[in-house]
Amino acid sequence: VREAPIGVFDSGVGGLTVLKALAAELPQEHFVYLGDTARLPYGTKSPETVARYALQAAEALCEYGVKCLVIACNTASSVGLPAIRVHIHSVPIIGVIEPGAEAACATSKTGHIAVIATEGTVRGGAYQEAILRLRGRARVVAQPTQLFVALAEEGLHEGPIADSIARHYLDPLFRASPGQASSGGPGASREPTSFPDTLVLGCTHFPMLAGAIRAAVGPDIQIVDSAATTAKYVRETLERESLTRLESPAPHDAKGRTRFLVTDSIERFARIGSRFLERPISPEEVELVDL
Amino acid sequence: VREAPIGVFDSGVGGLTVLKALAAELPQEHFVYLGDTARLPYGTKSPETVARYALQAAEALCEYGVKCLVIACNTASSVGLPAIRVHIHSVPIIGVIEPGAEAACATSKTGHIAVIATEGTVRGGAYQEAILRLRGRARVVAQPTQLFVALAEEGLHEGPIADSIARHYLDPLFRASPGQASSGGPGASREPTSFPDTLVLGCTHFPMLAGAIRAAVGPDIQIVDSAATTAKYVRETLERESLTRLESPAPHDAKGRTRFLVTDSIERFARIGSRFLERPISPEEVELVDL
Repeated sequence: VREAPIGVFDSGVGGLTVLKALAAELPQEHFVYLGDTARLPYGTKSPETVARYALQAAEALCEYGVKCLVIACNTASSVGLPAIRVHIHSVPIIGVIEPGAEAACATSKTGHIAVIATEGTVRGGAYQEAILRLRGRARVVAQPTQLFVALAEEGLHEGPIADSIARHYLDPLFRASPGQASSGGPGASREPTSFPDTLVLGCTHFPMLAGAIRAAVGPDIQIVDSAATTAKYVRETLERESLTRLESPAPHDAKGRTRFLVTDSIERFARIGSRFLERPISPEEVELVDL
Repeated sequence: VREAPIGVFDSGVGGLTVLKALAAELPQEHFVYLGDTARLPYGTKSPETVARYALQAAEALCEYGVKCLVIACNTASSVGLPAIRVHIHSVPIIGVIEPGAEAACATSKTGHIAVIATEGTVRGGAYQEAILRLRGRARVVAQPTQLFVALAEEGLHEGPIADSIARHYLDPLFRASPGQASSGGPGASREPTSFPDTLVLGCTHFPMLAGAIRAAVGPDIQIVDSAATTAKYVRETLERESLTRLESPAPHDAKGRTRFLVTDSIERFARIGSRFLERPISPEEVELVDL
């Protein structure tokens, strides 16, 4: 079992930011990555549909003999994790919401936390709930930032267009407009605590836009990237359950291998995925599967 | 048969710009609009997948007794129309590519035509082929402008963000950068014919961005909107085949009715669709169907 791969699932390329963090945290492990590219995006679909798709994908990954399942998609974690946990008991199942919520609660000083995500994740409310479970007096604001997904996939994650879209979404969360400043007559100071001190990137695409997001919120906001925190969570889980791959005696086999499976559009996955993974993916490395 | 509705199909809300044009051109007709919202977007999927989905949708609409099928989606028209025409012979089937190509060829003086569309439509090459079939010496350039879809759905089709994205995509097509100007030494004039004189909006979302597109290309470029040209094409087809609805004697029944069918996300369809159709769609008007 220790030699078995870790299954990583996303609707498309976004989960590759999680895979990159996992490979950095657990370089000796093998991975099977499944992108449900025929049915993406999940972020704008109904909870029932996303839950059904996520369960199918999780079951498909189990057939590859994985020792652990990572749901590297916020929308699928948000609405699909309960259904997956009801049906699959053989392996640990880790989503990206809980690690992100934990990191946000540990990071925030004021307890005022902003979450940006897809429409589906925001509407599902899973981040809001997970944060409030951990820190009951937290104040959570959630904002859908749907265009970030298209920007990241178009390779426009840097530059003036990304900057202006980041400001469009984030200024209302982090900066007082004249009408929103605290009233109290001329000279009254604004309340600094009326803005969040922590921002959760609640979509696996968003680490691609880290530069534009940082420029929009300024240097003082703590940014929580759930990819990195999820990778730590997976390592701890494997260690706790004695599932980590043993160091191989042969040096050529020391580094883990990754298989890529998609349900459609191999060429597009390889092209855009290379940017997300920050290493070239050749179309020959990607297999087409049918769920 | 004359009383039967016209079936209109798209992957989501984009086809509503075609439905709006159809309702303006044929106000007495009934319509059944099907948005395959569970499987959108088609624009980034493989041709085989889009063809399969489009055929399923067309067959579903036939079960509603339609007298004519309009494939109000450029990607589905581009790669699905042949498969649909092989399997369905009972009613006329009209896509958006041929009307758009005809209008472009009739409009362009120089024969140099630019097409903007989704990745799938551009890669499929159907516009390029349709234009060259009609005007063999035309010169066609095609540019994917994927972000326009997300902008239109986010309601960001106007304003500085839309303007800057339109310039990002269209400046390279319509304006010489210093390096692209014709060489010939200082003082040599640029060749004015080296730029297209006509721009085809090859995606049903793009009429929403007409203002930003016009601002980017300037006043001299002819913009061809395939929604309007498709509506004329449908009217001519119905008249030729004696399929137009006869004027009703009862005035209250003179105006056609529209049924909306979607495969997922009724609330989102109604909310975003209202903007595309430029009239409110209530969630109660929208039925969920399974293909």
